[in-house]
Order: sequence, then C-alpha cells, then structure tokens
Amino acid sequence: MSYSSRLLEEAVEAFSRLPGIGKKSALRMAMYLIREDKSEMKTLFVEPVDQLISNIKFCEKCNNISDDDVCNICQDREHKAETICVVQSIRDVMAIEDTAQYKGIYHVLGGVISPLDGVTADDLNIDTLIERAQSDQVKEVILAISPTIEGETTIFYLSKKLKEAGVKITQLARGISFGGELEYADEMTLGRSLMTRTEYKLSEI
Amino acid sequence: MSYSSRLLEEAVEAFSRLPGIGKKSALRMAMYLIREDKSEMKTLFVEPVDQLISNIKFCEKCNNISDDDVCNICQDREHKAETICVVQSIRDVMAIEDTAQYKGIYHVLGGVISPLDGVTADDLNIDTLIERAQSDQVKEVILAISPTIEGETTIFYLSKKLKEAGVKITQLARGISFGGELEYADEMTLGRSLMTRTEYKLSEI
Repeated sequence: MSYSSRLLEEAVEAFSRLPGIGKKSALRMAMYLIREDKSEMKTLFVEPVDQLISNIKFCEKCNNISDDDVCNICQDREHKAETICVVQSIRDVMAIEDTAQYKGIYHVLGGVISPLDGVTADDLNIDTLIERAQSDQVKEVILAISPTIEGETTIFYLSKKLKEAGVKITQLARGISFGGELEYADEMTLGRSLMTRTEYKLSEI
Repeated sequence: MSYSSRLLEEAVEAFSRLPGIGKKSALRMAMYLIREDKSEMKTLFVEPVDQLISNIKFCEKCNNISDDDVCNICQDREHKAETICVVQSIRDVMAIEDTAQYKGIYHVLGGVISPLDGVTADDLNIDTLIERAQSDQVKEVILAISPTIEGETTIFYLSKKLKEAGVKITQLARGISFGGELEYADEMTLGRSLMTRTEYKLSEI
C-alpha cells in the first residue's frame, strides 16, 4: 500500500500487531484517529493504553491482573477465602465473575500442561497454589479448567498434588449446555451426561 | 463484564472507540498488550500511534495527509503538475497510487456534496482546486469521484466551476469490472456499458 506518510505507515504497522487486525482494519483505525480531535484522542485513546502497559500488575496472591499489589477480589474476599477457584487465565476469572455465582477467591495458573506446546508443570503457577491450599483457612479447591485433553491432564496432575494438602477437590459439572439441542451435542458430551445423569428435583425449578 | 482492574477497563474502553471494534475484540487487544514485553509494546505500539496523532499534517497544496507541510507526492512531482486528479479522500489517493498507473498530482476534496448529510460545496476544498486549476501549468483535471448519486452531483458541480479555468476535464471510465460476470452486473452499469461500447483493437492485448 502507498501511504505517502511515514507516520501513517508506522501507525498502521502498530495497529496490525494487534490480534485479529489486518492491514485494512489497521488503516481504518489510524484514519479514525487522524479525523478526530487531536487532544481528545490523546486523552481517550493513547493515555489509557499507555497507562495499562506501564502500570498493570499481577496480584501477588492469585496472579490475576491488578492495579495494586493485591487484586481487589483477594482484598475484598479475604474473609471468604475458604474456596479457591483454579482457572487457566485472567479471562476465565472475568467469565466466572460475570456469572455472579461464585463468591470465593481465585488462582490463575497461566495456562495448562501441554507437552506439545512445550508447557510443563514448572511453567505454571502450581507451587504457589499448593502453598495456598495448605493454609488452614482453605477448605475446597475448584478446578475450573477447560475439559480439553490438556485441561484434563492438568486437572489430573493438580488433583494428585492437592491431595496431600487435604482439601476437598471439585471440578465444574459436565453435561449438555443450557439451551443446547441434543442432536447437535457431541457423542462424548452426550454419552457422559447420560452416565452422570442427576435426579430430577421439582424444587430446583 | 467484570474487569477487576480499572486500568484494563479504561484500555478496553479506549480500544472499543476504534471503528469496527466491540468490547470482546477490545479486551483481546488489551490482553495482548499486557502479555507482551512492556518496553517493546511502548516502542512498537504506543509511540507510533502517539506520533501519528501528534504530528500528522495535511498537505497545504493538495490536502493529502503528510509528514511535512507539503506531501511527498506534491514535492516529487512538481514538474509533472500538468494533471490534477481530484479525489474524495486520502484513501482514494492510496488506491490510485497502488495502481501505479498515474504519475500526476492530486487534490483531496474531503468528501462529496450531499445535502442529506448536510455537506454543501462550501464544506469541501473546492475553492483551492479552482485556484490550482487556473495555474498555467495545469492542462487536465481528472474527476476521480465515486459514481454514486452524490458523486455525480459533485462531478457536475465541479465541471461547471472548472470550465471557466479552461482546462480539459475528464472522468474515470465506467463499465463492467475486470473479472466481473455479466449476469451479476447491475442493469445501470450493463446498460451504460452497452451505450458507451468501445471499438475492439487487437493491438491493445
């Protein structure tokens, strides 16, 4: 593409580093910033992005992203630290928080064990999890990890490690999604959900 | 969405200002910046974007974007300023430059006359175009404007204004696109391309 401006070319280059953004979208973004008011775009776009990169921290307790040394979930729920929910990533913390069904604290692993991708147990925040689980306050560890092959391996590994800590170990319920059609469910999910069927209780509804 | 970080929330807000970016994509972008190396992301992302917003100029001759007071096309082709190609936007300059078929200079109007959108002739860079066209050096003005209703209105308006300047006025050829299928061409295009059919010359191929 002919840019006729080195500044524009470099900004397009910058935007196209972002995930899912090609040269055309990057150009549209750069053109948008040029069209709008200069000082407004500095305040509303450049500054928040710069602040994020410069000042974001990782919670020293649970490894969630945080503005302070300890994240606001760990701070607010110190008295509810009976349950630790173990997740792969920060995105999963957000997803679970959005359900408003969980009131305990988290532990972010930073991934799952995946030999093919060169990720071993040592690359994940497992030692600190074991340490936290050994605290007298902790009664249950929920392994809220995606039920992929790598996820299942990680769950197996963690459950073995956590057994020594003497806490209750649970995992997310598996089954048919709410609103899902039986005919489109995969065989594995449908088969397992038959095997692990639960008693129907009128009071639940 | 629960962000558990004000910095992240504000950065997501910033990214979702960009055209075509929703909250989910914005979050993916912000997470990408967090994961990568801090100083690298400052150099490779924040700085180029900041530089663009702070330092981009508009060419005082043709109104194209530029790093200097006069854009590099106007600078490089001063001796070829016989032809001015009039376009709606900076994007159109890029599109024509990408064809590598044009070696003259440009004039960016900044839009087309569109009463429904409240854009009148006074909102466009028309006065400066007339002024430039009156120069002895200029022999031809190409009206490279999209053949929409608003575009045709603008072409008509400009051609009347330019007539007094005594230059040759041309417009882009209209017809079936290269690689286009006849059956999918709209009636207007197909009808016009029949009316304005050109003689087939073996030497052209």
